[in-house]
Amino acid sequence: MKFRIEKDTLGEVQVPADKYWGAQTERSRNNFKIGASASMPTAIIMGFAYLKKAAAYTNCDLGVLNTEKRDAIATVCDEILEGKLDDQFPLVIWQTGSGTQSNMNVNEVIANRAQVLKGFEIGEGEPLVKANDDVNKSQSSNDTFPTAMHIAAYKSIIDITIPGVEKLRDTLDIKAKEFHNVVKIGRTHLMDATPLTLGQELSGYAAQLNHGLKALKNTLAHLSEIALGGTAVGTGLNTPKGYDVKVAEYIAKFTGLPFITAENKFEALAAHDAIVESHGALKQLAVSLNKIANDIRMLASGPRSGIGEILIPENEPGSSIMPGKVNPTQCEALTMVCAQVLGNDVAISVGGMQGHYELNVFKPMMAANFLQSARLLGDACVSFDEHCAQGIEPNYKRIKELVDNSLMLVTALNTKIGYYKAAEIAQTAHKNGTTLKEEAVSLGYVTAEDFDNWVKPEEMI
Amino acid sequence: MKFRIEKDTLGEVQVPADKYWGAQTERSRNNFKIGASASMPTAIIMGFAYLKKAAAYTNCDLGVLNTEKRDAIATVCDEILEGKLDDQFPLVIWQTGSGTQSNMNVNEVIANRAQVLKGFEIGEGEPLVKANDDVNKSQSSNDTFPTAMHIAAYKSIIDITIPGVEKLRDTLDIKAKEFHNVVKIGRTHLMDATPLTLGQELSGYAAQLNHGLKALKNTLAHLSEIALGGTAVGTGLNTPKGYDVKVAEYIAKFTGLPFITAENKFEALAAHDAIVESHGALKQLAVSLNKIANDIRMLASGPRSGIGEILIPENEPGSSIMPGKVNPTQCEALTMVCAQVLGNDVAISVGGMQGHYELNVFKPMMAANFLQSARLLGDACVSFDEHCAQGIEPNYKRIKELVDNSLMLVTALNTKIGYYKAAEIAQTAHKNGTTLKEEAVSLGYVTAEDFDNWVKPEEMI
Amino acid sequence: MKFRIEKDTLGEVQVPADKYWGAQTERSRNNFKIGASASMPTAIIMGFAYLKKAAAYTNCDLGVLNTEKRDAIATVCDEILEGKLDDQFPLVIWQTGSGTQSNMNVNEVIANRAQVLKGFEIGEGEPLVKANDDVNKSQSSNDTFPTAMHIAAYKSIIDITIPGVEKLRDTLDIKAKEFHNVVKIGRTHLMDATPLTLGQELSGYAAQLNHGLKALKNTLAHLSEIALGGTAVGTGLNTPKGYDVKVAEYIAKFTGLPFITAENKFEALAAHDAIVESHGALKQLAVSLNKIANDIRMLASGPRSGIGEILIPENEPGSSIMPGKVNPTQCEALTMVCAQVLGNDVAISVGGMQGHYELNVFKPMMAANFLQSARLLGDACVSFDEHCAQGIEPNYKRIKELVDNSLMLVTALNTKIGYYKAAEIAQTAHKNGTTLKEEAVSLGYVTAEDFDNWVKPEEMI
Amino acid sequence: MKFRIEKDTLGEVQVPADKYWGAQTERSRNNFKIGASASMPTAIIMGFAYLKKAAAYTNCDLGVLNTEKRDAIATVCDEILEGKLDDQFPLVIWQTGSGTQSNMNVNEVIANRAQVLKGFEIGEGEPLVKANDDVNKSQSSNDTFPTAMHIAAYKSIIDITIPGVEKLRDTLDIKAKEFHNVVKIGRTHLMDATPLTLGQELSGYAAQLNHGLKALKNTLAHLSEIALGGTAVGTGLNTPKGYDVKVAEYIAKFTGLPFITAENKFEALAAHDAIVESHGALKQLAVSLNKIANDIRMLASGPRSGIGEILIPENEPGSSIMPGKVNPTQCEALTMVCAQVLGNDVAISVGGMQGHYELNVFKPMMAANFLQSARLLGDACVSFDEHCAQGIEPNYKRIKELVDNSLMLVTALNTKIGYYKAAEIAQTAHKNGTTLKEEAVSLGYVTAEDFDNWVKPEEMI
Repeated sequence: MKFRIEKDTLGEVQVPADKYWGAQTERSRNNFKIGASASMPTAIIMGFAYLKKAAAYTNCDLGVLNTEKRDAIATVCDEILEGKLDDQFPLVIWQTGSGTQSNMNVNEVIANRAQVLKGFEIGEGEPLVKANDDVNKSQSSNDTFPTAMHIAAYKSIIDITIPGVEKLRDTLDIKAKEFHNVVKIGRTHLMDATPLTLGQELSGYAAQLNHGLKALKNTLAHLSEIALGGTAVGTGLNTPKGYDVKVAEYIAKFTGLPFITAENKFEALAAHDAIVESHGALKQLAVSLNKIANDIRMLASGPRSGIGEILIPENEPGSSIMPGKVNPTQCEALTMVCAQVLGNDVAISVGGMQGHYELNVFKPMMAANFLQSARLLGDACVSFDEHCAQGIEPNYKRIKELVDNSLMLVTALNTKIGYYKAAEIAQTAHKNGTTLKEEAVSLGYVTAEDFDNWVKPEEMI
Repeated sequence: MKFRIEKDTLGEVQVPADKYWGAQTERSRNNFKIGASASMPTAIIMGFAYLKKAAAYTNCDLGVLNTEKRDAIATVCDEILEGKLDDQFPLVIWQTGSGTQSNMNVNEVIANRAQVLKGFEIGEGEPLVKANDDVNKSQSSNDTFPTAMHIAAYKSIIDITIPGVEKLRDTLDIKAKEFHNVVKIGRTHLMDATPLTLGQELSGYAAQLNHGLKALKNTLAHLSEIALGGTAVGTGLNTPKGYDVKVAEYIAKFTGLPFITAENKFEALAAHDAIVESHGALKQLAVSLNKIANDIRMLASGPRSGIGEILIPENEPGSSIMPGKVNPTQCEALTMVCAQVLGNDVAISVGGMQGHYELNVFKPMMAANFLQSARLLGDACVSFDEHCAQGIEPNYKRIKELVDNSLMLVTALNTKIGYYKAAEIAQTAHKNGTTLKEEAVSLGYVTAEDFDNWVKPEEMI
Repeated sequence: MKFRIEKDTLGEVQVPADKYWGAQTERSRNNFKIGASASMPTAIIMGFAYLKKAAAYTNCDLGVLNTEKRDAIATVCDEILEGKLDDQFPLVIWQTGSGTQSNMNVNEVIANRAQVLKGFEIGEGEPLVKANDDVNKSQSSNDTFPTAMHIAAYKSIIDITIPGVEKLRDTLDIKAKEFHNVVKIGRTHLMDATPLTLGQELSGYAAQLNHGLKALKNTLAHLSEIALGGTAVGTGLNTPKGYDVKVAEYIAKFTGLPFITAENKFEALAAHDAIVESHGALKQLAVSLNKIANDIRMLASGPRSGIGEILIPENEPGSSIMPGKVNPTQCEALTMVCAQVLGNDVAISVGGMQGHYELNVFKPMMAANFLQSARLLGDACVSFDEHCAQGIEPNYKRIKELVDNSLMLVTALNTKIGYYKAAEIAQTAHKNGTTLKEEAVSLGYVTAEDFDNWVKPEEMI
Repeated sequence: MKFRIEKDTLGEVQVPADKYWGAQTERSRNNFKIGASASMPTAIIMGFAYLKKAAAYTNCDLGVLNTEKRDAIATVCDEILEGKLDDQFPLVIWQTGSGTQSNMNVNEVIANRAQVLKGFEIGEGEPLVKANDDVNKSQSSNDTFPTAMHIAAYKSIIDITIPGVEKLRDTLDIKAKEFHNVVKIGRTHLMDATPLTLGQELSGYAAQLNHGLKALKNTLAHLSEIALGGTAVGTGLNTPKGYDVKVAEYIAKFTGLPFITAENKFEALAAHDAIVESHGALKQLAVSLNKIANDIRMLASGPRSGIGEILIPENEPGSSIMPGKVNPTQCEALTMVCAQVLGNDVAISVGGMQGHYELNVFKPMMAANFLQSARLLGDACVSFDEHCAQGIEPNYKRIKELVDNSLMLVTALNTKIGYYKAAEIAQTAHKNGTTLKEEAVSLGYVTAEDFDNWVKPEEMI
């Protein structure tokens, strides 16, 4: 491999000749061989591209960067956003906890790429834009990385999580309406209980997701606050007047999302409670979705020895040894995602709680976990929706058989003959393997006619 | 001990003669000897007292309970709320996951106590109000227990958590203003950084708590939804028309809190996402408070070999072996609480995600963890505020010494001479143990006069 | 209330006249009003009693305490161990993170009680033994509290957890043997699979618990190491030569458990990895037990609309509204305990990871969570065993019906006619609602006679 | 893109013409678009390669597979192990919870590649080995996936985790010995305490890692048990006699690791407690490493306003805005890893606790989290060792200054003049900003000569 020499304040470094990154990126590559390479999420790099461009515009507007430099920076940022430079960001999550080297990676790539766009070789000639002095102007890793985190997190929620969850919620809503008349046995403690309709059951799932979406949206205000303008410790040292407000406006404009400058920059650097807060809502969705997916696989269990009240799509052969087996695989993928999100929540909280003084240094880890959760939840909801929820159908025959057979219909007699006599009827029928009606009449508590008038599953819902 | 015989649908049970509880409570006592007795939180019992009274009034209004019974029930509920019957609730958290026996415990105590108030011995005479048929009328454990949970949780947040956190937040606000001029060294990565004021540092903590309070308040809407009226599976079987809305109004009236009936009762029984949601906000506060308390103890560390920039109250002898030692004990209590809340969050999420069909059966565990977190956070903030935060004072001498000495003041030169030359100055001073000014001048990058004009900590904030 | 004046190095304090505790306990009571009072676990106090007695004996043997003082201290320790002084320990978990005040609470109670046993009033006369100089001799909170933790944790595991888990394991073993011939349908992905016996299924649960017990026992070696003798920072300052080894021997003798002095005292004060390690094994047991209890409630679900393959004891009326309902309440209590233990594990890990320098100051929180888990798991296993597992019976009729009906018996044909043809048979039978045999013959893949010879559930196990 | 048609029991599927995978892999690719593609860990694929080869040899030895097929299978397995077919495994973690499609992916790739090695085009000609009937012979996804998990997990621990941790432990051991005489101030509660040596401090870290390694090794016995031979539900249906023992021997031989057949196959399929158990030990290591890394960055903090007792290597420029700043970046990477491992532990536990009946269906998620933790911990320890721990040097001047100044040396006087007088000396010196000696003499408690004889830091360790 061919190399070129790059320099930083600690000295010279050999860098692969064909790469745009510079000395600091290369140091980080060598110093942090932890896990797979290039694990820093692409969404973070995109966040940086938005903010570097916004900073260049703001710096130019405020008179500290000329338009040539602004446009050079902006052009490379656009290339990054188009995915043209994806192979220029080799760093890992497990680096400096402030993400300093990823900030420098972006700075270096922009500076060197700008030079190439100007017609030079990489590293050749007097640089048009310098990584530290121009690309990073009015910035610090300490305020850029959290800004990139918020951009990436907010975008992921808006682009992936919310649409995915809403799609599934809409299907559940439709199914709830479609099956609002399908009377089935209820189950509490996994034991037979009084009836409800399949539509009612599904409406509960939709309500869970509605509450989860509301909770998630409640967190966006905090996430819309960005740290940029705080620079090293939150004081905004080395930024021109008005910079923080204006740079947030540019970021809002470029991303189409309502970012504003954080009211308190000290909080925005030293703590990532906004990440903790929004991920808390993602975790709530995971809790809901685990319940929903688990119910659906239990309802669909069988085909002959399970509950079997609903049918779900048969998407793939279920077993490499048992011929003809089909499994609730979408439920399994979704519940695995939910478990992952619960774990990610702990990682994020543990990172969030250990900030020191003016800086939290668990940033890349927190960001990576957040972005994984946001994407997995969104993707898994879409997958579950398309390959499972949309295909849910009642097994009418089975549903009717079970509800007709149920002993818990006796509850309808509570208000007629009291709890104790009703219990005696149910227990006797259970012991004898008979019907409620037989025992109700035989015990002399209810006439057959009254029983038929009083115990109607369709009126118990 | 003397006993009397009580009966339920499974048969006879011996109950301590002097206790108001009945057969089902006693069965539960005997069947669940898990952990310390009477661990079911008192706040849950109080929640039941509110709702039993509200149910009695609603049932009466709607014509299914007479006023004599209503008043008998309400009288005992008031006694419970006054704490007069605290020793009548012996059950544990680790019982039926629906809290059925705690519901019955309350039903039985109310029925038997009402009888005694009427002039009978316990268990004597035809009961004025029956546990199942009257006290529990229009109710099920499945909708009462989650209602008691929401009442207890909401009240704890309003009565304990929010006031406690606000009290600490107010102190931090006051201190932030008081010390807004105290310029000190900033620290990022635990390493010396550019300066800020002590007031700015504290303002970040206050901002964290403000965000946390906002997040917590955002969750209250979900928590204000109560399940009562859903009865066994959410359909509202065996309730009079209009019951659910009216009973919520009575609960709102009796508690003074804005409870409303849950829009979807299936969700309200089968899932406790409202508990998950609100506890998520409590966890966020724990994350914030851990950071704050940890910072404060590091800032106060010493007296001679630590950071020592602030002084905190000396509340107790700190060591049984090291004479004269004083420790940041309030920080320690608070961070232990934070760790506990993180753990509780996992317990709650794990419980919340495992509901089955129409009922979640991790209710008492979820409630107990929630109430512990809500109380510990509130209490610990008050304790921390009174015995630590209010007494925070700057150690002016130490603060000045450190800031004057700092190498990171060099950052002020970035915009004058560029990042690279500034770095050279700092590194040389670090290596030689000299001052920035000495090296700046000696390297020929800045005149002494310019240095003094450009590098002013008080202008770097 | 009457008070007396007590003194410590910070000055005078009013203490309730009838209590044995002194100034430092009282300060802590007033400074830490966090949660319920007296929450410090009794098992920790007992641990202190063992170690204070052991220290007195060791100090005496090594010539730094006379026999009169030794015996005075030992006598009070014995009273504590007999539970006679339970109301003398009012402190909470949420105090100094080293548990200093609980150490002093024990020191003060021993000193004052010794004086009373000598015939004085509390606080009267020249003390026979002094709290700091005699009772605490050769000790520090920093080495006593972790020692008390290890004693309490080890004893809880030996006395409560292991016997409880073993009791349940033994029952599962017995049941596994009893039902080793009961052929039933297997289920994977909650879907019908090839058969196994009920005994085999239960043997898997027993194997889980055996592995869990082995894992727990593997951790005891670390837990047997005690910090005592390290004093303030692990160096053993102010202890006589040989003290650490001898005091561990006395503790081993008094407790009957194989305690030894920690090889590295710095680790033993600064970290509580032994607690983390043993609780990890408790968590593993919780993971296993959750699976087992969940399976059992699903297998017992019904009575008419569930799986219903086993019958479990009916211990209490299951519903305040649905007459005759009986629920798997022991499964619910046990799974709630499991969720709690998962949460406790996080609290303990979060505490364990945040030690600073020579001392971890999350000790009381870690201890309290550990002891709760150890007790809850042990108690819940006993409860589950006595009120559920021992009563498990197969529902033979249901089991036979389901296995005979199963489509997955087709797997037996794989080795005869290949996976693809077998799958075709199963899918056709599923579609037509027919039996495997009918379709196997009708598709011409197998003769009726071969089918009967090849497809025998009892030979598929 | 060109496609070919592949078939499975559900019908035809279009597959990219140049890929070896078949219908089931392609279905899974299309049905599970969740997160990044090909996220199933390579280590799992390698685990499959070992076990498929072992199964082929065992099947051949036991007479159910001919040698031609055996060798064809083994040859492709060796290619997989050499990394030659890495691009043939496109599936994600978030698929069927049993990993069925990844098992089929391997089966399909082996079958098709074997055909190509025989000289055919992919999918052409009568297959030499069939995916289900030959490659998967005597196997099920249900026993292969957990076997692949155990192989991958065990290997990762042996190849990456243990060597990484041991390397760091060795360095800490060496440093502990090197600095065994460097007397420094101790700190408890972050406050000055009695002295110890830097070597003693570091020895505590080494002891933590030794305990962690022991704990990890304790778990290997469980992890060495493999499920293979259990097939679909644990009964071993469709396997030849002696298969399970022999196939484990082959796996042991091929991997060089001591795998044995699981004593209870029902446990091995339905639960993954071995993964929970071993990851518990990884989590313990994370708890230890977080403490160690955090201590080291605090000890190295400064350069002028921190503790500054040790020097660590300066590896990269620490700030994009603050010139000359150097940060404890390796500590940050390591503590981020520790937080991740804590989160992963929860994900694994949550997955492990939710198995149903004969199968746990959180396998790929559990495996992926485990393998991430094992690798990150190993890699991060190596990185931390090479770029930080090996370069730790005492800052002798600073260490001496702090110890000489310390008030806690007064503890040495406890045994001479009692705790109370010693405390008075320390408090007076603290108040007056004087030395202990000055106040000791001035208070008249000790002569100057005695003071010098009694208070010697180097004798307090």
